[in-house]
Amino acid sequence: MVKKAPRRTAERIIETSLALFNRFGEPNVSTNLISTELRISPGNLYYHFPAKDELVNALFDRYLTQLNPLLNAAADVHDVEDAWFFIHSLFEQLWDHRFLYRDLNDLISRNRRLETEVKDLLARQQRAFAQLIAGLHHQGALQLDGAQREALATHMVVLLTWWLSYEYVRNPRHALEEDSAAQALMGGAQHVLRLLSPHLIVGARAHLQSLLAPYSTAPTD
Amino acid sequence: MVKKAPRRTAERIIETSLALFNRFGEPNVSTNLISTELRISPGNLYYHFPAKDELVNALFDRYLTQLNPLLNAAADVHDVEDAWFFIHSLFEQLWDHRFLYRDLNDLISRNRRLETEVKDLLARQQRAFAQLIAGLHHQGALQLDGAQREALATHMVVLLTWWLSYEYVRNPRHALEEDSAAQALMGGAQHVLRLLSPHLIVGARAHLQSLLAPYSTAPTD
Repeated sequence: MVKKAPRRTAERIIETSLALFNRFGEPNVSTNLISTELRISPGNLYYHFPAKDELVNALFDRYLTQLNPLLNAAADVHDVEDAWFFIHSLFEQLWDHRFLYRDLNDLISRNRRLETEVKDLLARQQRAFAQLIAGLHHQGALQLDGAQREALATHMVVLLTWWLSYEYVRNPRHALEEDSAAQALMGGAQHVLRLLSPHLIVGARAHLQSLLAPYSTAPTD
Repeated sequence: MVKKAPRRTAERIIETSLALFNRFGEPNVSTNLISTELRISPGNLYYHFPAKDELVNALFDRYLTQLNPLLNAAADVHDVEDAWFFIHSLFEQLWDHRFLYRDLNDLISRNRRLETEVKDLLARQQRAFAQLIAGLHHQGALQLDGAQREALATHMVVLLTWWLSYEYVRNPRHALEEDSAAQALMGGAQHVLRLLSPHLIVGARAHLQSLLAPYSTAPTD
């Protein structure tokens, strides 16, 4: 058997921090807890990440690195099946970094870099949704002018970004736990897709409904 | 001239706390700051409100007291003009208590009573929106079955509840300032109404568009 090379310490720190932040919320996780969990010295952690904000920033960068190819793929959405896959993938990546969404206002008010980066991210998500809608428009699945597309894209961004907050208000003690993943992801993805539904022509709407049907007892709009 | 009776101290504390919480965010306002602003002793403040949470709870109760008659009026919405007025009034009351919405997740994670009350509030807002949609349905302005009404009501609740968070991400330094009120209120109310728009019959949609037109250069959906 070939022994795996040990993962680099920085990468291990990142992985463990992400798991702890997601589980307990970033403000509730100290750098001491992270080093204890990793069985490394606080000094070793400090050597790699001199402040917790730098860990948060590194995780945000990682999130963007994963997200960017997906956002770029919005231009390739041609039908509701592509849209369904695109939106579900967005929610999967969001769930993997849900500590960012647990308390977004607090995060950006404490972190100057994220104040700018989160704003940029929402603007890029808005553009991606507008592209997705334009793709459906050009394929004849819906008919919306530019201003209507922007309004719909705004609704999709708000629902995407605060869906976990909504789930959290409804069930504060369990909504962000690992075993709520399926419900949170499917609920969010379905509702973002439902925003598209009333604009779709009959055939595309029926197609969307058939995609959503296995996951819900409720019909789409 | 008849001299006004001095307002009762508890009421003055409530008013001043609301103003300070809205301006600086509740976590950034100490009870000491409140008593200094009121020129009363910390002991006097403590006599009325032994903990800051009790002030927050009293303000939340006041918000509900103002909100309840409005939510009850959802059953009387018969056309898009009523809907426009209803939704704009919701946003006005929300803006007056915007400290609650500045960081909802943090608030409910720190306050057991609000954990339950905010959840109940969202459920009642959901019911009110479902009634509003049902009213438009019965007047023939739109055609949606029960499940479709619930989905649309959910979208309206999420947009209502997190619209200020969205404005905050887009402009963290000014979105919640007093002079941003008009933009935040009109933006939010317009977008919640735009959710209704694609479901409306042609005449009602044109009516809605004429109501929104003075406030926006963008057409409704």
